[in-house]
Amino acid sequence: MSVAAIKPTLASVLAAADAGLETTRKRLFDLLSIPSVSTDPAHAEDCRRAAEWIAADLRESGFSAAVRETKGRPLVLAHHAGPGGNAPHLLYYGHYDVQPPDPVSLWKSPPFAPVLAEGPRGPRIVARGAVDDKGQTMTFLAAFRAWHEAGGGLPVRATVVIEGEEEIGSPNLEPFLTAEREKIAADVAVISDTGMWNIETPALTTRLRGMAYTEITLKGPSRDLHSGMYGGSALNPINALTAILGGLHDAEGRVAIPGFYDDVRPLDAATAAEWQALGFDEAAYLGAIGLSHPSGERGLPGLERLWARPTADLNGIWGGYAGPGSKTVIPSEAGAKLSFRLVPNQDPDKIVAGLRRFVTERAPADATIEVKVLSASRAINVPLDTPFVRAARTALAEEFSRPALMMGCGGSVPVVESLSRALGISSLLMGFGLEDDQIHSPNEKFELACLHHGIRSHARLLAALG
Amino acid sequence: MSVAAIKPTLASVLAAADAGLETTRKRLFDLLSIPSVSTDPAHAEDCRRAAEWIAADLRESGFSAAVRETKGRPLVLAHHAGPGGNAPHLLYYGHYDVQPPDPVSLWKSPPFAPVLAEGPRGPRIVARGAVDDKGQTMTFLAAFRAWHEAGGGLPVRATVVIEGEEEIGSPNLEPFLTAEREKIAADVAVISDTGMWNIETPALTTRLRGMAYTEITLKGPSRDLHSGMYGGSALNPINALTAILGGLHDAEGRVAIPGFYDDVRPLDAATAAEWQALGFDEAAYLGAIGLSHPSGERGLPGLERLWARPTADLNGIWGGYAGPGSKTVIPSEAGAKLSFRLVPNQDPDKIVAGLRRFVTERAPADATIEVKVLSASRAINVPLDTPFVRAARTALAEEFSRPALMMGCGGSVPVVESLSRALGISSLLMGFGLEDDQIHSPNEKFELACLHHGIRSHARLLAALG
Repeated sequence: MSVAAIKPTLASVLAAADAGLETTRKRLFDLLSIPSVSTDPAHAEDCRRAAEWIAADLRESGFSAAVRETKGRPLVLAHHAGPGGNAPHLLYYGHYDVQPPDPVSLWKSPPFAPVLAEGPRGPRIVARGAVDDKGQTMTFLAAFRAWHEAGGGLPVRATVVIEGEEEIGSPNLEPFLTAEREKIAADVAVISDTGMWNIETPALTTRLRGMAYTEITLKGPSRDLHSGMYGGSALNPINALTAILGGLHDAEGRVAIPGFYDDVRPLDAATAAEWQALGFDEAAYLGAIGLSHPSGERGLPGLERLWARPTADLNGIWGGYAGPGSKTVIPSEAGAKLSFRLVPNQDPDKIVAGLRRFVTERAPADATIEVKVLSASRAINVPLDTPFVRAARTALAEEFSRPALMMGCGGSVPVVESLSRALGISSLLMGFGLEDDQIHSPNEKFELACLHHGIRSHARLLAALG
Repeated sequence: MSVAAIKPTLASVLAAADAGLETTRKRLFDLLSIPSVSTDPAHAEDCRRAAEWIAADLRESGFSAAVRETKGRPLVLAHHAGPGGNAPHLLYYGHYDVQPPDPVSLWKSPPFAPVLAEGPRGPRIVARGAVDDKGQTMTFLAAFRAWHEAGGGLPVRATVVIEGEEEIGSPNLEPFLTAEREKIAADVAVISDTGMWNIETPALTTRLRGMAYTEITLKGPSRDLHSGMYGGSALNPINALTAILGGLHDAEGRVAIPGFYDDVRPLDAATAAEWQALGFDEAAYLGAIGLSHPSGERGLPGLERLWARPTADLNGIWGGYAGPGSKTVIPSEAGAKLSFRLVPNQDPDKIVAGLRRFVTERAPADATIEVKVLSASRAINVPLDTPFVRAARTALAEEFSRPALMMGCGGSVPVVESLSRALGISSLLMGFGLEDDQIHSPNEKFELACLHHGIRSHARLLAALG
């Protein structure tokens, strides 16, 4: 196919994407109405419904698609032969599962009743999963549909994997990828689960932090006790747990677990300079969430702390009585969820081993401590010098009329590591989220403009690689 | 009335108490079936039912009884003129409200479906409130009934106050006592809400710790955040709260709040020697709850730590995600319930002020900390040289055929202070609970033998004072 022939096709595909935007929005609302919360077994059937919905959507765009079982939530596996032959083979990844919506009381509209609300930058879609990752998944689903309708099919070979356990650490994804590697071996993975620099400026994410997510339980007395009868003699698990976790950071904001920074390499000067040039306004970033002082390690630039330094954050803590009023109890146990964000060269297993030593050495006599690992992934640096990265930069630059930034990201996309290990391929992280999208929070949203640009960018990427 | 005339009356009253034991047990089961949890507004109507039940019971024993409104749960106020004239006037105090039964899953039988279970020391009543304080209240209600049936009325003037907010700090009791002081002015208060030394050995409790119960909330970001996107830049309220509370105790087990021990007087040598002579087996005490090492201040005897030293115990902590699986959230706030047990001469207000300084000085920039006081009471030392204490010692010694011990108690009975302030009277703390009664815990129980001895002891006390 000559360049002359592609250009008219792309124009008509983009026109189809534009014309279909309202239909796409409605379809996304259908998907967002399904409360596919993976962490809660009560929503297992909803997860299945979301998978079926996506498989049906892909079939309408010319894919062969199936819902495949795993030990947990099912995933969607779909194929499109495209023009066949030696056309590039792209593996699209997304996830249909979402975080729990709690605290539900803080939502302005019900989390699973999507609405189109007017925001300062135009209409926005508000619902749990609006951007993470149903909305972002919809960007390439709608691009496929536009190519199917206006382009006569896809210009590449495509495999699609949409899983339902991303929010709980993808325990069954890598085994699936490994088992099916013959069928899904592709040249590169395309993932839309990251962000732009801002609403005008596209980005590829080329650096991701890893994660070790743990749950710590400290058990003391064999039953709950009265704090008057036993206070001063019996071990109090909440006292003990806070005493241990209260020492997680030193006065400089560094993680105090011995050896935690042993494998952390200093940020290279070139990258540091590039990030410095981005002019990140940390005051504005924090101001948007009601804060004015950066936390974390003292004396480091904001983007370095967010993209290139490891952290330890307590994501949950519990024990004793948390209801209204007072209860004079010494509970028999207390617990916490503690996660570490990791940077390249840190080994999650080593970090967890350090944590185990840290809590065990500090545990009082009689305390029993369990440290469970709920998920673990290494940090990622994506290689930039590939035809796929170049094509994506071109697609984004043409769509937004400005160059795409090469960003870091504080979050983890563990699937990138799984894809690398199981299939030996790298990932193109082309995402359309914004910093204020409130993912994992009440009132999660996705700007309609971002959805629209996302669909068009994917349509362009397909053209560029076709 | 001559001694010769009283003795036959007491014998017949005790016989009536013995004959009525099974009926008393059934009546107690009725009362225990009412889930009168004062801290939970959902149980407000149950609290009223419990109050009505008790008022009706007292009327059957010849009292005039009314359910009186307060700003919170109602209380029962009842009077019996006894022989009138200059007969001693006793004020009986109890409470019909109970602690929440959670964790309900650990109960072997439903908390509000009382059962008579066979224990190593005979039958025991198992239910929330079995001993604290419905069962103990029943000891004097049944003694009144026995005197009414066999003694022809009461040999003393009696006023009864049964409140419904003891477990939430009795916010409305003292105002009520003060407002009604003319009607309820008595010579002494009689309270059954404490314990015996063991099942064979009766006790009066003459030393009680006070309490300051607080709730601490630490607020950070204006909304829940994704720990990947914000970790390393945004203040994490759970990190901050544990860092502060983790410093509550020093390496010697002492409370680290500056000034906390300023007003604590050393235990006098005589009391220390008396307690030493009790032969308290702390290893056995801790062994019964699955522990083998004492917590609290290093190097002090067990009873001194429990009865005469102040403590700081976290009774609850919460923040972020505590459900199954993982959620990568930095929550917008975290909180804890923290209570202090106080000893004579410590001022709850001063302790709370010290806590406020402690948390405020340690709060990171941007954190908003609120410290609410849920209840506060001073420690109590009961004077021993009164006719009422002497009469109670006699009644108990005769009932158990061994002397009653003068004990301390680690818990608080704030009503003792309220009675002293509002009415200027002291309290006789004659209780029948045992250390292993699991008050405030799952499977709370009251030995039937303790109920029976309690009824008879109260019947004897009435005779001794009549």
